[in-house]
Amino acid sequence: MSRTSFLTESTALLERTPRVLRELLDGLPDGWLGEPDTAGGWTARDVIGHLISAESDDWIPRAEIILSDGTSRPFEPFVRFAHVERDRDATLDELIERFGTLRGEKLTRLNALVQDDADLDRRGRHPDLGEVTLRQLLATWTVHDLDHIAQVHASLAASRDEAVGPWKTYLGILLRRDGDAPAG
Amino acid sequence: MSRTSFLTESTALLERTPRVLRELLDGLPDGWLGEPDTAGGWTARDVIGHLISAESDDWIPRAEIILSDGTSRPFEPFVRFAHVERDRDATLDELIERFGTLRGEKLTRLNALVQDDADLDRRGRHPDLGEVTLRQLLATWTVHDLDHIAQVHASLAASRDEAVGPWKTYLGILLRRDGDAPAG
Repeated sequence: MSRTSFLTESTALLERTPRVLRELLDGLPDGWLGEPDTAGGWTARDVIGHLISAESDDWIPRAEIILSDGTSRPFEPFVRFAHVERDRDATLDELIERFGTLRGEKLTRLNALVQDDADLDRRGRHPDLGEVTLRQLLATWTVHDLDHIAQVHASLAASRDEAVGPWKTYLGILLRRDGDAPAG
Repeated sequence: MSRTSFLTESTALLERTPRVLRELLDGLPDGWLGEPDTAGGWTARDVIGHLISAESDDWIPRAEIILSDGTSRPFEPFVRFAHVERDRDATLDELIERFGTLRGEKLTRLNALVQDDADLDRRGRHPDLGEVTLRQLLATWTVHDLDHIAQVHASLAASRDEAVGPWKTYLGILLRRDGDAPAG
């Protein structure tokens, strides 16, 4: 995959995430929004808060460290619960808008930062994982989006865990909440 | 939950599904679309085909059987691979449009079929699961949507399984492909 297509493909996915979340959640009745995906997991609100934190503190700051310091300066560890206090007074729709604005700004920055193919092979140092490339960071940014959108879907499904009755045995998105695999 | 709120909440979710899929997939580069969610699983194309089949043959036909025959006539078994031959020549965007049109028609039919609270407690007979209610059928329709949208996200993520490098250990959506749980 050439530099252009990797960056283009990554951007095409990343720019969709706020739109997908808006289409799914904007105006959705509250009856869908109260449950976390698993016991101790996250509601849709929590996930958007986490995506806002990652947008501010994770992807682009780490890309900048890779390009400025290489492996000589490890990334800052990422705080996974920063959103809980910060977002207490915002509505879900406000959080989605905030995330969409941030995402737009960060994609503009990404496309300014990455000049050519060789940049994607530049290396940095993750505090736990060791050496990583900018290409791996970008791939992880996109898969992290996909993982958390899927988690939002699991949290919505959780609010119907009992209502589906005996059909639950066919519904992997509910069975995984209990640590089970789907039947058949 | 009153009849009105259960039907309203279910419809609010069901009408979003084609829009969410369109927002995610319309024009997405092919580099995201080639992998199934797991070995032997489904690509985004397969999932949309399956949703089209369920829309035609499963939810509303079964609701009609419940309301016309109750438990005296079991549902027809649902064929899970009907889409493979049928959809061979359609583009992904065409399949999404076909699904959106069908979904709109079926929701119109649903709202004509269900008259009051008592209808949701009407019972039918699933060929394998035994007695089920119309309320359980509607809840299952919504969770089935959520499960398969999450599956589409997993199939997209699968195309970056190697590209994320050492970060894979944090990405449950990829680890589940191998039957592993996320670290930490």
